[in-house]
Amino acid sequence: ARVGFIGLGTMGHGMATSLINSGHTLTVWNRTDDKCNDIVTLGASKAASAAEVVQTSDITFCSVADPEALRDVVFNLGGVLEGIKSGKGFVSMSTVDAETSKDVNEAVTARGGRFLEAPVLGSKKQSIDGTLIILSAGDKTLFQDCESSFSAMSKKFLHLGNVGSATQMKIALNLLFGSVTASLAESMALAEKAGLDCSALMDILTTGLILDPMVKAQGKAMLNDDYPLTACLNNMQKDMRLVLSMGDEYSQQLPVAAAVNEMYKKAKSLGHGDEDMSAIYKAYSQ
Amino acid sequence: ARVGFIGLGTMGHGMATSLINSGHTLTVWNRTDDKCNDIVTLGASKAASAAEVVQTSDITFCSVADPEALRDVVFNLGGVLEGIKSGKGFVSMSTVDAETSKDVNEAVTARGGRFLEAPVLGSKKQSIDGTLIILSAGDKTLFQDCESSFSAMSKKFLHLGNVGSATQMKIALNLLFGSVTASLAESMALAEKAGLDCSALMDILTTGLILDPMVKAQGKAMLNDDYPLTACLNNMQKDMRLVLSMGDEYSQQLPVAAAVNEMYKKAKSLGHGDEDMSAIYKAYSQ
Amino acid sequence: ARVGFIGLGTMGHGMATSLINSGHTLTVWNRTDDKCNDIVTLGASKAASAAEVVQTSDITFCSVADPEALRDVVFNLGGVLEGIKSGKGFVSMSTVDAETSKDVNEAVTARGGRFLEAPVLGSKKQSIDGTLIILSAGDKTLFQDCESSFSAMSKKFLHLGNVGSATQMKIALNLLFGSVTASLAESMALAEKAGLDCSALMDILTTGLILDPMVKAQGKAMLNDDYPLTACLNNMQKDMRLVLSMGDEYSQQLPVAAAVNEMYKKAKSLGHGDEDMSAIYKAYSQ
Amino acid sequence: ARVGFIGLGTMGHGMATSLINSGHTLTVWNRTDDKCNDIVTLGASKAASAAEVVQTSDITFCSVADPEALRDVVFNLGGVLEGIKSGKGFVSMSTVDAETSKDVNEAVTARGGRFLEAPVLGSKKQSIDGTLIILSAGDKTLFQDCESSFSAMSKKFLHLGNVGSATQMKIALNLLFGSVTASLAESMALAEKAGLDCSALMDILTTGLILDPMVKAQGKAMLNDDYPLTACLNNMQKDMRLVLSMGDEYSQQLPVAAAVNEMYKKAKSLGHGDEDMSAIYKAYSQ
Repeated sequence: ARVGFIGLGTMGHGMATSLINSGHTLTVWNRTDDKCNDIVTLGASKAASAAEVVQTSDITFCSVADPEALRDVVFNLGGVLEGIKSGKGFVSMSTVDAETSKDVNEAVTARGGRFLEAPVLGSKKQSIDGTLIILSAGDKTLFQDCESSFSAMSKKFLHLGNVGSATQMKIALNLLFGSVTASLAESMALAEKAGLDCSALMDILTTGLILDPMVKAQGKAMLNDDYPLTACLNNMQKDMRLVLSMGDEYSQQLPVAAAVNEMYKKAKSLGHGDEDMSAIYKAYSQ
Repeated sequence: ARVGFIGLGTMGHGMATSLINSGHTLTVWNRTDDKCNDIVTLGASKAASAAEVVQTSDITFCSVADPEALRDVVFNLGGVLEGIKSGKGFVSMSTVDAETSKDVNEAVTARGGRFLEAPVLGSKKQSIDGTLIILSAGDKTLFQDCESSFSAMSKKFLHLGNVGSATQMKIALNLLFGSVTASLAESMALAEKAGLDCSALMDILTTGLILDPMVKAQGKAMLNDDYPLTACLNNMQKDMRLVLSMGDEYSQQLPVAAAVNEMYKKAKSLGHGDEDMSAIYKAYSQ
Repeated sequence: ARVGFIGLGTMGHGMATSLINSGHTLTVWNRTDDKCNDIVTLGASKAASAAEVVQTSDITFCSVADPEALRDVVFNLGGVLEGIKSGKGFVSMSTVDAETSKDVNEAVTARGGRFLEAPVLGSKKQSIDGTLIILSAGDKTLFQDCESSFSAMSKKFLHLGNVGSATQMKIALNLLFGSVTASLAESMALAEKAGLDCSALMDILTTGLILDPMVKAQGKAMLNDDYPLTACLNNMQKDMRLVLSMGDEYSQQLPVAAAVNEMYKKAKSLGHGDEDMSAIYKAYSQ
Repeated sequence: ARVGFIGLGTMGHGMATSLINSGHTLTVWNRTDDKCNDIVTLGASKAASAAEVVQTSDITFCSVADPEALRDVVFNLGGVLEGIKSGKGFVSMSTVDAETSKDVNEAVTARGGRFLEAPVLGSKKQSIDGTLIILSAGDKTLFQDCESSFSAMSKKFLHLGNVGSATQMKIALNLLFGSVTASLAESMALAEKAGLDCSALMDILTTGLILDPMVKAQGKAMLNDDYPLTACLNNMQKDMRLVLSMGDEYSQQLPVAAAVNEMYKKAKSLGHGDEDMSAIYKAYSQ
């Protein structure tokens, strides 16, 4: 199958390189022409427009900066839509809002094409190494046809349901990533205010794996609604109290810990104090 | 050097086993006698009281359930204090409040003894495997004398300063662990409310390492006050907005994300929007 | 001056009645005809369409349920725009989003008309009594021409600047009203969990005026950036600590108090602990 | 009945003055002597010690700065306890922690005395005007014997149950006062960031009574668990969304509004969206 790639920016360049290096027949296009050069050197063809990429390819992947850029490259003169006809596949790998994703889906399918939204987890390095994680949603047959391409670009790819589901999954994951970052900042700020050695704190955190195994075990507990005891919720709530009391002592603002403590209290008041701390999930699911 | 161990509960039993298995001459005591048996089988001596352990040993380690248990074992008749004399080392490995730790320190040093508070990170499995992390604070010469014992019990041990510092460090770390747990619960609850596949969410999170490498890189950035761009703070704040808007759509309570978003906004208003998302630290350190 | 009123719902009916009762020459229109009857009995004329109200009147007031209803009554066939010509005044008293308000403003002024957005504070009773508060923004000459009408409908009316400012002011006020309501709920919930007499709590709160005078004094302090001491911020932060500690004791979730406490701590860490509690404003304005 | 007053500071001086002016036979004592002078001029006697006040009086009132001062004046040489004997009444009007209050209660009753904790609401001005609110708890017969004294000092006095209840009631009220202050600060900060006229905002808020009547109606609704519609909860949650969106636009940190919004969402998810906004209480009481 012939594949195409539109958008050779930070992420797209690495993904397109993974496609060509894994033996795919590839046609590329980028708004600014010179970013195509080294991929052409590796054997790809260069198209004159986004429409031409789609015309030449069975499946076209697209990675652009934001919703506006996606709308431009799809709907404008010489854009993706002009090349779509029955059976053509279009895979949007940008992270855009659900509405944009759905608008593109409608336009593509109205012309007989097939559509997948497929935002990725990972950064530049993973795009080059072909070790991204691809969250896709939409046309299931297109997902199957993408197997060799997705294998080239990622270490894992999933089909998550109807268009919109992949975007929502990425949002739910971003909640975790954004909150972990803030929690780390809060932890470090408290340590620093108290005159502790923050490099020792990082040394401890990075001696081995801590958070990934913890989250793995806790996620399993939440999925099964069964919370095997590692540390009991009452204890963790007591610890959060110590955290806040230490913040008080040093007048260090700890808004995340304060919000977290309220949820442990809620779980406790619902009767889950003697279960594992992961039973905080009950305070949310109720 | 002869070493002693008081308290053979979930954690203490594993730690004492690590000591005897690594060739230390060990004397043990536990409130309920029968927990000593298998360690005695491995070659340890059994003392008649906590005081006797201390009298027999150069350094005595102690792991009990809570501050009250520690006070009992130290101050009661037949307790640790009765055995303390010049040069004796006492190492408290329980997680207790700073005040209890300081009281024990005073009492031990008043009799010429040396004291370390040494709470640990890790659970039963790590105590058996000898792969705990030991956070210690207090007498530096005692810390040096503990090297072979700490090596047997842990994969990493640190000296963090005066008595109190190790306790505070553990509190600062608990802030992170407790908040990550809550953030995971919030992420899962949002996914479930939206009808997403929560087992896919966990599948994505556990495909490879995500949080540990992320926290390692971000911690380094915060320590160096230099934030190499992986994802810019403005983008993360926009993502948190999408998170909250999705929570709104499904009427899912997201108090942690809401508190987190306010700190990204604060960092943005301080002019760090174009830096890496880890620059949220600036909103705290100011 | 002849005035018109479009929309005789819960609020509009009271406002129109105030206009006719104060001697204004009034023309009215309502989507469902029968709501006009009693106002016609009082001497008003009934128009056949919104456009006719505007054609007949120098200034037309409009109070409808939501942005969609406003767009309908302005832009649809037989709507307000058809009647607008040079010098006509149109005053939108509905609470709508800033965008809708600006769209109507553009359309009205493009035809030579004058526009005010004028959302109100108050409920049905105040609309009947003519004791609303009118927040207006937009054409200043129209504001002046509205003086006798606004006097009939309200106890206070203000001009707050360009179109959009009145809407934003109402949003800023809603922050306060919504948060006070939540704070009261939190206070009552804590009292109830602790077994206190909640009707005594309300009895205390309603014995005399408490919140209005407090807010008046505090607002003045914030405006002047000068915080005469009534209760010092350090004391209030200590009190919030007692609040949270009591919440802890009874496992009562107190997310608002927890967030509030963090801001008092922030103000304290900025050096305002010995000033009045209203100096919490410094934690925000920084 | 002969009454005594210990502690003639900011609050105590006003209270003692109210007692003497209303015709009570009064004996006073203050640590620094000269503060007694003008009250003696009005007809009071001056005692040589706290103990002597108690010996001379049937009921002794006490208003000192903090728990330490109360313990000193009660337990020290020449203190209150020395004068306590069967039937003597001691009324502590300072705001102290529950523990201190209970310790004093025990000591007084152990000697046959009667005890009330009676913290007040109000500031210097109210103490002078005799318009404080007195929250009392403890010995009911003493409360009855205090009627004429409490009438002189306050516009309202309540008996709230066993010792500890009055302190807890004051804490629950402080939650409200502290949160209203923070909410006002947040509202003002948002208005200022958006370039609105903050003095107009205060002008609107102080045109008439707004918060006291609102809280009165809402408290009644919560007490009766019946929420007559003034503004529906779904609307208020939508308004909080506009608040947060405006905060976002101006990068203004709004942690209180963010926490508040989460509780409206919770109430909504519990099915109370179409009830009055005061039904947010259901999100707490559950």
